[in-house]
Amino acid sequence: MATFGDIGLAAGVNILTALIFLIAFAILRLQPFNDRVYFPKWYLKGLRSSPTHSGAFVSKFVNLDWRAYIRFLNWVPDALKMPESELIDHAGLDSAVYLRIYLLGLKIFVPVALLAWAILVPVNWTNNTLAISQATDKLEYSDIDKLSISNIPHGSKRFWTHIVMAYAFTFWTCYTLRKEYEAVAAMRLHFLASERRRPDQFTNEGCRVIILNQLLTCKELSDVQVKIVPASVLVKNVPPDHDESVTESVEHFFLVNHPDHYLTHQVVINANKLAKLVKEKKSKENWLDYYQLKYSRNQSQRPMTKTGFLGLCGDKVDAIDYQTAEIERLSKEIAEERERVKTDPKCIMPAAFVSFKTRWGAAVCAQTQQSRNPTLWLTEWASEPRDVYWDNLAIPYVSLTIRRLIVSVAFFFLTFFFMIPITAVQSLANIEGIEKRAPFLRPITEAPFIKSFIQGVLPGIALKIFLIVLPTILMMMSKVEGFLAISTLERRSAMRYYTFNFVNVFLVSVIAGTAFEQLNTFIHQSPSDIPITIGVAIPMKATFFITYVMVDGWAGVAGEILRLKPLIFFHLKNFFLVKTEKDREAAMDPGSIGFNTGEPQIQLYFLLGLVYAVVTPVFLPFILVFFGLAYVVFRHQIINVYNQEYESAAAFWPDVHGRIIYALIFSQLVLMGLMSTKGAVQAPPLLIALMVLTFFFHRFCKGRYEPAFVKYPLQEAMMKDTLERAREPNLNLKGYLQYAYVHPVFKDDEDDEDEDFNGKSDDSVIVPTKRQSRRNTPAPSKMSGASSPSLPDVVLENSSSLK
Amino acid sequence: MATFGDIGLAAGVNILTALIFLIAFAILRLQPFNDRVYFPKWYLKGLRSSPTHSGAFVSKFVNLDWRAYIRFLNWVPDALKMPESELIDHAGLDSAVYLRIYLLGLKIFVPVALLAWAILVPVNWTNNTLAISQATDKLEYSDIDKLSISNIPHGSKRFWTHIVMAYAFTFWTCYTLRKEYEAVAAMRLHFLASERRRPDQFTNEGCRVIILNQLLTCKELSDVQVKIVPASVLVKNVPPDHDESVTESVEHFFLVNHPDHYLTHQVVINANKLAKLVKEKKSKENWLDYYQLKYSRNQSQRPMTKTGFLGLCGDKVDAIDYQTAEIERLSKEIAEERERVKTDPKCIMPAAFVSFKTRWGAAVCAQTQQSRNPTLWLTEWASEPRDVYWDNLAIPYVSLTIRRLIVSVAFFFLTFFFMIPITAVQSLANIEGIEKRAPFLRPITEAPFIKSFIQGVLPGIALKIFLIVLPTILMMMSKVEGFLAISTLERRSAMRYYTFNFVNVFLVSVIAGTAFEQLNTFIHQSPSDIPITIGVAIPMKATFFITYVMVDGWAGVAGEILRLKPLIFFHLKNFFLVKTEKDREAAMDPGSIGFNTGEPQIQLYFLLGLVYAVVTPVFLPFILVFFGLAYVVFRHQIINVYNQEYESAAAFWPDVHGRIIYALIFSQLVLMGLMSTKGAVQAPPLLIALMVLTFFFHRFCKGRYEPAFVKYPLQEAMMKDTLERAREPNLNLKGYLQYAYVHPVFKDDEDDEDEDFNGKSDDSVIVPTKRQSRRNTPAPSKMSGASSPSLPDVVLENSSSLK
Repeated sequence: MATFGDIGLAAGVNILTALIFLIAFAILRLQPFNDRVYFPKWYLKGLRSSPTHSGAFVSKFVNLDWRAYIRFLNWVPDALKMPESELIDHAGLDSAVYLRIYLLGLKIFVPVALLAWAILVPVNWTNNTLAISQATDKLEYSDIDKLSISNIPHGSKRFWTHIVMAYAFTFWTCYTLRKEYEAVAAMRLHFLASERRRPDQFTNEGCRVIILNQLLTCKELSDVQVKIVPASVLVKNVPPDHDESVTESVEHFFLVNHPDHYLTHQVVINANKLAKLVKEKKSKENWLDYYQLKYSRNQSQRPMTKTGFLGLCGDKVDAIDYQTAEIERLSKEIAEERERVKTDPKCIMPAAFVSFKTRWGAAVCAQTQQSRNPTLWLTEWASEPRDVYWDNLAIPYVSLTIRRLIVSVAFFFLTFFFMIPITAVQSLANIEGIEKRAPFLRPITEAPFIKSFIQGVLPGIALKIFLIVLPTILMMMSKVEGFLAISTLERRSAMRYYTFNFVNVFLVSVIAGTAFEQLNTFIHQSPSDIPITIGVAIPMKATFFITYVMVDGWAGVAGEILRLKPLIFFHLKNFFLVKTEKDREAAMDPGSIGFNTGEPQIQLYFLLGLVYAVVTPVFLPFILVFFGLAYVVFRHQIINVYNQEYESAAAFWPDVHGRIIYALIFSQLVLMGLMSTKGAVQAPPLLIALMVLTFFFHRFCKGRYEPAFVKYPLQEAMMKDTLERAREPNLNLKGYLQYAYVHPVFKDDEDDEDEDFNGKSDDSVIVPTKRQSRRNTPAPSKMSGASSPSLPDVVLENSSSLK
Repeated sequence: MATFGDIGLAAGVNILTALIFLIAFAILRLQPFNDRVYFPKWYLKGLRSSPTHSGAFVSKFVNLDWRAYIRFLNWVPDALKMPESELIDHAGLDSAVYLRIYLLGLKIFVPVALLAWAILVPVNWTNNTLAISQATDKLEYSDIDKLSISNIPHGSKRFWTHIVMAYAFTFWTCYTLRKEYEAVAAMRLHFLASERRRPDQFTNEGCRVIILNQLLTCKELSDVQVKIVPASVLVKNVPPDHDESVTESVEHFFLVNHPDHYLTHQVVINANKLAKLVKEKKSKENWLDYYQLKYSRNQSQRPMTKTGFLGLCGDKVDAIDYQTAEIERLSKEIAEERERVKTDPKCIMPAAFVSFKTRWGAAVCAQTQQSRNPTLWLTEWASEPRDVYWDNLAIPYVSLTIRRLIVSVAFFFLTFFFMIPITAVQSLANIEGIEKRAPFLRPITEAPFIKSFIQGVLPGIALKIFLIVLPTILMMMSKVEGFLAISTLERRSAMRYYTFNFVNVFLVSVIAGTAFEQLNTFIHQSPSDIPITIGVAIPMKATFFITYVMVDGWAGVAGEILRLKPLIFFHLKNFFLVKTEKDREAAMDPGSIGFNTGEPQIQLYFLLGLVYAVVTPVFLPFILVFFGLAYVVFRHQIINVYNQEYESAAAFWPDVHGRIIYALIFSQLVLMGLMSTKGAVQAPPLLIALMVLTFFFHRFCKGRYEPAFVKYPLQEAMMKDTLERAREPNLNLKGYLQYAYVHPVFKDDEDDEDEDFNGKSDDSVIVPTKRQSRRNTPAPSKMSGASSPSLPDVVLENSSSLK
C-alpha cells in the first residue's frame, strides 16, 4: 500500500523525467539542423525553407545565439497563442477539434476536482474506519485510502454525500458534453459552409489550366485540396450491364434520375500496374537528379553506374544516359498502360464519383436511396480526395456482411485470447527451450549477463511486438471490413483499440487474471455481482493508476514533444540516404495525430477520472496535470509538426461523446457495486435511476446533434448554391471537377505529362486501387504508437506470469 | 405427467368445441338477419345491401332454403378461392401480407415437422433412459417425454443428430424468411408503384368538383382513399417566427429550398371544439331523420319531445321543429367556429402537409434533412390520410425524448411489477375483507352460493380486467410516446405486447414464479446458468403448451369466426337503439385485424414451434393445425368481415421478420442450455456459432430488404413521374391535393356545406386534433382482444397463488 511519500517519490521521478524531456526539446529545437524534425509542418506548407542559406558554417547546424536559450520555454505561449480560427486554417478542423478533447477533459475535471476536494475529501477524511480495522483486523491501509470512500463506515449516512456528488458530477459532465457537442456541431457546419468549391486563385477564364497547375505544384497540393470539396457523391455497386459500359451506365442512370442536377462523373479505374510503373519512373528520375547534381559539381568525370541489382553488379554504363533511357522507356510503358486500363473493361471498377451542378443536388443524391434494390447504386457523400481509401471501392454488398462477421469474430478472439499465442511463444523462448533446440549455443547462453538478458527480456518481447503492431492489426481489420474513407477506418480502429484497452488494460489491472479468465468469470457470475467485483477492487487500485497516469500521461506526453525516434531517424537518413532535396523532404517524418491510437488513450483517462471522481478524489489532480500538459504539447505539435492526412471535418466527435457517456455509465455502475457492499442501501436504486437518465441524455444528444455529422441539410446547401450563383454566375465547374478525384501519386506523375492530361476530356480518370506509400503518409505519432502500450505490457506481463 | 391418452382427450374436447363453433357459424351465417354480422365488409364497400327487400316475411330473417345447409362448409373453399391480387384490391396489402404470416408458419413448420418426425422421433424413441431412471429412481415420465430429447442418455453420441437438426431447421427457417422478405418487399414496392395520385373517375375537366363529390359520398370514401396517395410529406416542428404565420413560414421555406418541386401545403389546425359541434349536429340530424320517419308513418300526430336531459325532462315541444331549430343553431355555430380557428393563431399547429409536383420531389424531401438544426423542419413521408394520428403532430423534440424515457420506464414496471397492484386488489376483494369493511353485508356473503362465487371469481376479476385492458394500455403508451401514424402506434404496441407475453406467458409458464421473481433470479444468476434454467424446464412443459395451443389456438380461432360478441351486440342494438338506416350501419361492428394484439399471438406460436422443434417434435403437428386453421379463418374474416382501418403497405414486415429471428436465436440458446446439462460437450460451441450466423443473417436481411420499408427509391419515383407526365400532361394536381388531408369526421360534415368548401381556396384545412370515434373505427377483433388472454390469466392466477 502506497503512502503519500511513495506517491510523492514516483511523482518526483516522473516530473523529473518530463522536465528532462522538455528541456532537451527546448534546446534541440533551437538547433538549425533539427529544424526539419521540429517544424516539418511549415516545410510541408512551403512556408519555411532550410535555414542553411547564410551565416557561418557552424551556425548552419548549431544555434550560437545565447538569447534564444533564455527564452527556451517560449514554445508554450507560442503554442497557446494561435487563435482557434487560425488553427483551423493552418491544420484543419480535425486537429482543432482533437485538441478540444483535452480541453473538454479540463472543463469536466477542474470543477469536479474542486468540488470533490471541497466536499468529498473532508467527508472521507473525518472517519476512522480504516484506523479501527487496522487496530482490530491488522488490515494495512495507505494515506490515499484514508481520503477515499473506503474510510466511510459500513452503512453510514455519509454515503448520501457520495450519491449527491455522483449526481452532481454526472450533471456537470452531461452539461459540458452537451455544450461541447453543440459547439463542435456548429464548428463543423460553419467549416463545411465556408468551404470553397475551388481554390482562391481560380478565375473564370482558363480555370482549368490554373487548376491543373495548382494540382501539379506538389508543395501546395494538400493545402489547396482542403478547400476543394466538390459537390460530389460516391456511387458504389453499379450493376453490371451487358449493353453498356460502367461509365455509360452511370451517365444514363443519373441523367434519368437526377436530370436537373447531374453534371459529370469519374469512373474509378483499377490501375495498380500503372501506379507501380509511375513509382519506378519517379525513382529513376530521382537518381537522374542525383547524378546530374554530382556531374555539375565535378564536371571532370561522368558518373557511372552498373545496370544490375541495386547498381552493384552488371555492366558499367554512363549513369546519366542510362537513367535518361530508362525514364524514356518507362514513359512509353506508362502511356501504353494508361491506354490499356482505359480500354480494358476488366480494369474499370463498378464505382464512380458523380459531381452535381449544385450542392443541393449532391446533398439530395447522397441522402436518398436510388434504386429499388438497396444494395445497388449505393450513394454516399464523397470524402475529400485525400481521404478516399481506394481499395474498398468495389466490394459487393453480400461480401460486406460476411467481412463484417469475420472481423467481429476475429476481434472478439483477438481481445480475449491474444495471450494464448504469446504465452506459447514465451514458453518456447526461454533458456531451456533454446538450449534444448540449439545445444551448441549453450556456452553463450550460460554466460550470466546473456542469461539474465534472455530471461528478463525475451519473454516480454513477443508481447511488446504484439502491442506495437496492434494498431496496425486493428487498422487492417477495419480495411478488411470495407470502409471507404481513411477517416472512417481510423474511427473504427479507435473504437476497437478502446475496447481492447478497456478489457486488457483497465479490467485486467483492476481484477487480476487475463481477459480470458475474466470473461470466463463474468459468464459464470451473476450480473449483479459483476459491478460488485469491479467496484470493490477499484479503490485498491487507485495508487496503481496514479502511477500509470504519471508514467504514461506525464512522462509519455513530454516524450512525445521530444520526438526522439523521428529525430534519430531523420539524422540517420540525412547522413546515409539523402541524395537530393526531394529525398530530404522525404526523410522528414512529420507523423500525424494518429486518431486511431491517440483518442482511445485519452478516453482511458476520461474513464479513470470518472470512475475515481467519487471513489478516490485524490486521483483527480493527476488527471488534470495530464490534460493540461497534453493540451499544450499537442497544440504545439499540431501547429509545428504533424502533417494533416485528411480532413473529415470533426466527423469523429459522436464517437468521442459516446465513449465519454459510456465511461460515465460504467463509473455509475461500479460505484453502485461498491456502495452496495458498504451497506448503502439507498445507493442502488438512485444510481440505477441516474444511469437511465444518463442513457436518455445520450439518446437526446444523438438525436439533436449527431445529424450534423452524418447528414447534409438542404437549407444550407441551397444557401451556398444561391450565394455562389450570385457571385459567379458563369462558373465553369465541369472543367474543374473533371480532375478532382485523382490519386495523389498519380497527380505527382503529371508533372511531365501536362499535355496528356489536358488533352483528355473523357470522364474517366485513372487511379491505382492499391494505395501507395505516399511521401506525406505519416507514421503514427510516437506518443500513440509506442508509448501508449508502455504500461499495458507491464500489466500484461504481470497477468501472464500469474497464469 | 400427461400420457397420450390425456392429450388425446384434451384434443378431442377442443376439436369438438372447435367443430361446434364452426357448425354454429355455418348455420348462423346463412340466416339473412345475421347478414350484417357476417358480411359487414361488403356492406361497407357498398357492394351488398340488406337482403330484406323481397320474399316472405319469415325469409327476411331465417333462411328456409334447405340446399344452402347442405353446402354449409362452402365458406372454406370460398375463402381460399380469391386470388391474392384480388385480395389486395379488396382488403388492402396489409391484410394480404398479414395472412402471409400464417402461411409462413406453414412453410416453415411443415418441412420441419416432417424432418423431425422422420429423424428425431425415431432417434429419441429407441432409447430407454427414462425407463431405466423410472426403474431406479422412481421418476415418473409420460409417453410424450419418451419421444423427446429427455429420452437420450447422458453424453450420448446421438446428440449429434439434434445439433445437425438444429442447423437444418435454422437454415430452412432462414431460407424461408429470406424468400418471404423478398416477396413481401417486392409486393410492397409493386403496390406503392401502382398507387394512383387520384381516383379513377378523375378527369382533367372540373376535376375538383368530382373529387369533392367523391369525398362526400361517404360510402366509397375509404375505398377511394386507398388509391389517393398524394406525393406529400409531413413537416413537423416548424419553428415559430415573429414576422410570419406558420403557413407563410412553410410556404417560404419550401419555395426557397425546394423551388422546382414544391406545389402546395396544408397547415394542421387544432379544431377540437369544431369537431365536437359537428358531432352534436350529426346526432341532431339523426334524431330529425327519426322523427320525420315516424311522422311519415303516422301523419295523424306530430312527434313531441322534451328539451331537457336525454329528452326525459323539460318542456314538451314539437320534435321536428325543435330539431330543425337546433340544427340551424349548430350550423351557425360551426360556421363561426370555422372562421375562428382559421384566424386564431393559437389554433394553428406548427405542422403541415406539404405536397410536391413530382413524386421525386416528395421522395427527396422525405429522406433529407432540411435545416441545420435537426430538430426543426422534420420531414417524413406522410402516411395516407386515414392513418394520420392527429394528436401527436405538434410535439416538440425535447418533449419526445422525455416521453420516450417515461414510457420505457413505465413499460418496464408494467411488465415486471403489474402483479403487485393486482395482488393488492385481490387481497382486498376476499370475503374477510368485504365483511370487515361492510359488516352489514354479512348475511348475504354468508350464503353458500354467493360465498363461493366471491371466493372463486372475485380474485380473478382484477387480473382479467387488467388483461382485457392491457392492449389499450399499451396503445396509450404508444400514443404518449408521440408516433404520428396509427400503423406505427399499432406496430409499437405489438412489440410491447409481444414482450409482455414473452415474459408473462412464456417465461412464467416455463419457470414457476412471477415475472418479478424471475427478474430477481436472473439478476442474481450467472448468465451461463439462465439458458440452463430455461432449457431444463422446457421439455417438462411440453404437454402444458400443447394444451395451450389447443385451447387458445384451435378453439379460440374457431370462436373468432363465430363472432359471438358482435352477433349479440348487433341484435341488441338492432332491437333497442336502431332508429334509422344510418344507425343500422353504425350498429355493425366489423372489427379489424387488430395487428397490435393479433401479431404478437402468432409470434408466440412461432416461438413455441421453434423452441420445441428439436426438443419435443411431438409438439409440431399441433402448431401446424393452428396455422392451417387460422389461415383459413382469417382469410374468410378479412374477405367478409374486417374493415380496413388504414393501409401501411405492409410496413410491419420487418417487425415480423425480426421477432421470428429473435425466437430462433432464443430457441438455440435454450437448446444449448439444455444440452449442456445432458453431457453433450460438443453442443455449446456449435450452437454459439449457429447463433452468431443467425444474427448475421438478420443483419444481412436488414440491410438488403429493410430499406424497401423505410426508404423511397428515387428511380421508382422518377419512373412514375415520367409515366404520369406522358399520360396526363395537364393534370391539375393542386386543386385535388388541396383537400387530401382532411379528417374523416370533418369530411362527413361537408355534406351540406359544399358551397363553403368549394368557395375557399386558401391552403389551410381544418382538422380536429383529438381523434373522434368514427363510425368505421373497429374494435379489436374478438380473437385478439378477448380470447388471447384466456390462458395467460390462468397462468397468472396460478403463479399469483403460488406467491
